[in-house]
Amino acid sequence: MSRTAPRIAIVGVAGRMGRTLVNAVMQDDDAVLAGGIVEPGSSLAGADLGELAGVGRQGVAAVDSLEAIVDDFDVLIDFTAPKVTLANLAFCAEHGKAIVIGTTGLSDDEQAELDGYAERVPTVFAPNMSVGVNLTLKLLETAAKALGDEGYDIEVIESHHRHKVDAPSGTALRMGEVVAGALDRNLKEHGVFERVGQCGPRDPKEIGFATVRAGDIVGEHTVMFATEGERIEITHKASSRMTFARGAVRAARWVAEREAGRYGMSDVLGLD
Amino acid sequence: MSRTAPRIAIVGVAGRMGRTLVNAVMQDDDAVLAGGIVEPGSSLAGADLGELAGVGRQGVAAVDSLEAIVDDFDVLIDFTAPKVTLANLAFCAEHGKAIVIGTTGLSDDEQAELDGYAERVPTVFAPNMSVGVNLTLKLLETAAKALGDEGYDIEVIESHHRHKVDAPSGTALRMGEVVAGALDRNLKEHGVFERVGQCGPRDPKEIGFATVRAGDIVGEHTVMFATEGERIEITHKASSRMTFARGAVRAARWVAEREAGRYGMSDVLGLD
Amino acid sequence: MSRTAPRIAIVGVAGRMGRTLVNAVMQDDDAVLAGGIVEPGSSLAGADLGELAGVGRQGVAAVDSLEAIVDDFDVLIDFTAPKVTLANLAFCAEHGKAIVIGTTGLSDDEQAELDGYAERVPTVFAPNMSVGVNLTLKLLETAAKALGDEGYDIEVIESHHRHKVDAPSGTALRMGEVVAGALDRNLKEHGVFERVGQCGPRDPKEIGFATVRAGDIVGEHTVMFATEGERIEITHKASSRMTFARGAVRAARWVAEREAGRYGMSDVLGLD
Amino acid sequence: MSRTAPRIAIVGVAGRMGRTLVNAVMQDDDAVLAGGIVEPGSSLAGADLGELAGVGRQGVAAVDSLEAIVDDFDVLIDFTAPKVTLANLAFCAEHGKAIVIGTTGLSDDEQAELDGYAERVPTVFAPNMSVGVNLTLKLLETAAKALGDEGYDIEVIESHHRHKVDAPSGTALRMGEVVAGALDRNLKEHGVFERVGQCGPRDPKEIGFATVRAGDIVGEHTVMFATEGERIEITHKASSRMTFARGAVRAARWVAEREAGRYGMSDVLGLD
Repeated sequence: MSRTAPRIAIVGVAGRMGRTLVNAVMQDDDAVLAGGIVEPGSSLAGADLGELAGVGRQGVAAVDSLEAIVDDFDVLIDFTAPKVTLANLAFCAEHGKAIVIGTTGLSDDEQAELDGYAERVPTVFAPNMSVGVNLTLKLLETAAKALGDEGYDIEVIESHHRHKVDAPSGTALRMGEVVAGALDRNLKEHGVFERVGQCGPRDPKEIGFATVRAGDIVGEHTVMFATEGERIEITHKASSRMTFARGAVRAARWVAEREAGRYGMSDVLGLD
Repeated sequence: MSRTAPRIAIVGVAGRMGRTLVNAVMQDDDAVLAGGIVEPGSSLAGADLGELAGVGRQGVAAVDSLEAIVDDFDVLIDFTAPKVTLANLAFCAEHGKAIVIGTTGLSDDEQAELDGYAERVPTVFAPNMSVGVNLTLKLLETAAKALGDEGYDIEVIESHHRHKVDAPSGTALRMGEVVAGALDRNLKEHGVFERVGQCGPRDPKEIGFATVRAGDIVGEHTVMFATEGERIEITHKASSRMTFARGAVRAARWVAEREAGRYGMSDVLGLD
Repeated sequence: MSRTAPRIAIVGVAGRMGRTLVNAVMQDDDAVLAGGIVEPGSSLAGADLGELAGVGRQGVAAVDSLEAIVDDFDVLIDFTAPKVTLANLAFCAEHGKAIVIGTTGLSDDEQAELDGYAERVPTVFAPNMSVGVNLTLKLLETAAKALGDEGYDIEVIESHHRHKVDAPSGTALRMGEVVAGALDRNLKEHGVFERVGQCGPRDPKEIGFATVRAGDIVGEHTVMFATEGERIEITHKASSRMTFARGAVRAARWVAEREAGRYGMSDVLGLD
Repeated sequence: MSRTAPRIAIVGVAGRMGRTLVNAVMQDDDAVLAGGIVEPGSSLAGADLGELAGVGRQGVAAVDSLEAIVDDFDVLIDFTAPKVTLANLAFCAEHGKAIVIGTTGLSDDEQAELDGYAERVPTVFAPNMSVGVNLTLKLLETAAKALGDEGYDIEVIESHHRHKVDAPSGTALRMGEVVAGALDRNLKEHGVFERVGQCGPRDPKEIGFATVRAGDIVGEHTVMFATEGERIEITHKASSRMTFARGAVRAARWVAEREAGRYGMSDVLGLD
């Protein structure tokens, strides 16, 4: 752990994502686990954060309000719900803290409110904090530009667990958009989302999608570029929430040293 | 090469499948390359079969009629077209030869005609001669029965080259039928061939299909059985016509010692 | 949940495997979560098992001795350490309980002691309770026998997390033994565990092993049978301890209705 | 085919690589098949190049000397042997032709001789002309730099056919060098080429290699970056010589418009 390691507090340490975040901070030599919040009145207040996360006593107890640890932390990580997140942003604005937000489902109004706070709070806000997914998008852009019009067929294959209700995944669509953008194609025009029966030979400009739903697959995405004689495949496999937690901790370390403003993961990773 | 290695002739050695069959016979220590037929008047009559196949001189020249090598071979391998195949069957019936037929697209009438000849000719007739595909079907049956109703989701993923005009592949559908049969499910009812948009969580009895079309993929099929905590995947990858050619040569060796009758690949492989 | 669903207690619910077992029992409609044991004096005694497992309150509290729940359960699941397990076996023998043991590392003396108890206790003892791994071994035997001496090269590829200290994995070696046994080969003679530098072309009877160590891979094993023109790959991927937990619960349901005796997973799965 | 499509001649059209090159030129709308050379005295002189390649008559006959087609072509493609290649370079220098060389195994002296000719001949010389492999190297560099010291383990897995005599493949080693270079590591120090027995936990700076040898695998390379929670995998699969042939034809089109000089595939692809 370095001298200037930021002290990190985590909201929602009773939940699965919260426990994973505890774990990710503990594993990072350049971050300090400074506190964890549970809901007011939870039976888990007072529990050791490490024991909660199933990785052994850490000597830091869960509390049920941010006020209780206001002097202990520099950056807050919040993967909760829009209203909770906005309340926590207000707290950070008042007390000079930075924040990393992985909460999804904010309405346009809530996003506008977030933007308002971000003028005073160094804020990383990203729907997918996985370092790997963000890197993969960059690699796809490079590959699509290099292979261009040389006869490579492009297919996106994604697999997720049985509970996922939509298809293709948002990340698969994002990958398709990045590839289409690099090739001056329009995903709305060239995306092919089903092939059943006598569908004829493949159009060279198609970007095909195939979807698998099974078991507990956290999330796997492959983009294939194939031509006669070879294939290049770029694959991302998420094996646990840890991939998002690690990205969040990396964002927390990064944002601890930034001015107020709203940032995304490509800022954190320096990929642009 | 063993004493009793059957002498094999191949129809259509000017085409890609014919050249591959030449290659497969040459590689098999228990089979003798006895002849190869090209179309009447082809500029390739007289060419050395090994040179034609791109593997060096073999000392056997292509001829343009079966009569020219009637005394030289025991089994004929024929991957051509229905009418050619039926004419060759007539030749085999007349001269006491066995035959292996990989020709597809026979009408019901043509199949009936084939059955008639098969009363006098030892005949292996199979739409897919790949040893691996036939084994895979057996493994799928075993797996489906063992995993049964224990919460394993089943998905079939198939990839083929850009020129393939239908989806899913016939082999993928056959795999689905085998799995459905082992589980007393009906593929017509439980097969899911597209997932787009808000399709909701997966039904436990679904058998899902995903299709990839790209480049020169000869044919890849994976059946996945996935539940919380684990996946079993059974995969077949064809890398060249050689897989069909090798199966055909194995069938030729097998049928050389059989009575007249119509046989399939499961007979050849002893999988039942 | 059926009428006769066995009531299951779990040893070591404070640990990761224990929590996973709690989860697996809760998900099984044919099993009842009857109790969970923590170490004497643990701060987690009294905690709700569901909250401990991170999946919501279940109304069953952790206790710190088996005696406290002696009338509440039928089968004990124990993935702990040899001495703890043997003490628990003695308890089961005394009180007429069945047991499922996933503990590893028992010495020969400890195994003999286990065998003694098993004369009075219905006991499933298995080093790997994954249903999928046990099924995979069966599929490998079938495949090896069918492909036999027809020129298929066999390779075993295994991937595990960065902390694993030995190679190849025990499961990979077991897969190699099953394949070798089916082909009348000796793994000691034909197993190839490294290829570096000018190692020459492959011997047809080799069974090759390749090892990957990276990240948090729980455990992936692929056995490939490859020849000219095709490959068959049989793959098992463990994605979480859940695969072992589910196998253990399946074993618990099965052993609840058995006579005293020592059983393995192939008995539970009816694979022989 | 465009107006300025270069006219291409191919050396060694009787061999497998030569036939594949014929095929690749025929498929390229921006290249003209201008001639093909066989060895002096070959029985294939006079044969139609398309028939030789198994893709139907093209109206261009094989010849047994370059002189015979000296006025017909602009660029020569040569995947033969060092001495043949140097003789052909001399011919190109004398007659103002460009050349693409995929020949391997040149000694230092022979390379120096090649450099001499390249002062007068536009020359592309590359040991691996696959567009995909060269792109993959670029992607690996980007990925390694982005993931850097953030706890990603790096492994290189390569699979080749049973006849390959060395391990790891030259391409796998090149991939390792690119990754090591991007991370300021030394492959000699950090490369791990075998793991057998009690090898202990993985060192974070290791770059591991795993080798598979089986069947007819043309060449598959995967580089995996794995950490807790995710993996990124970048994979190249060659399915036929066509991948090298297509790269060679792309190089031929490119070099037809260049000044004299020695170029590599990264020049052709504009990847630097």
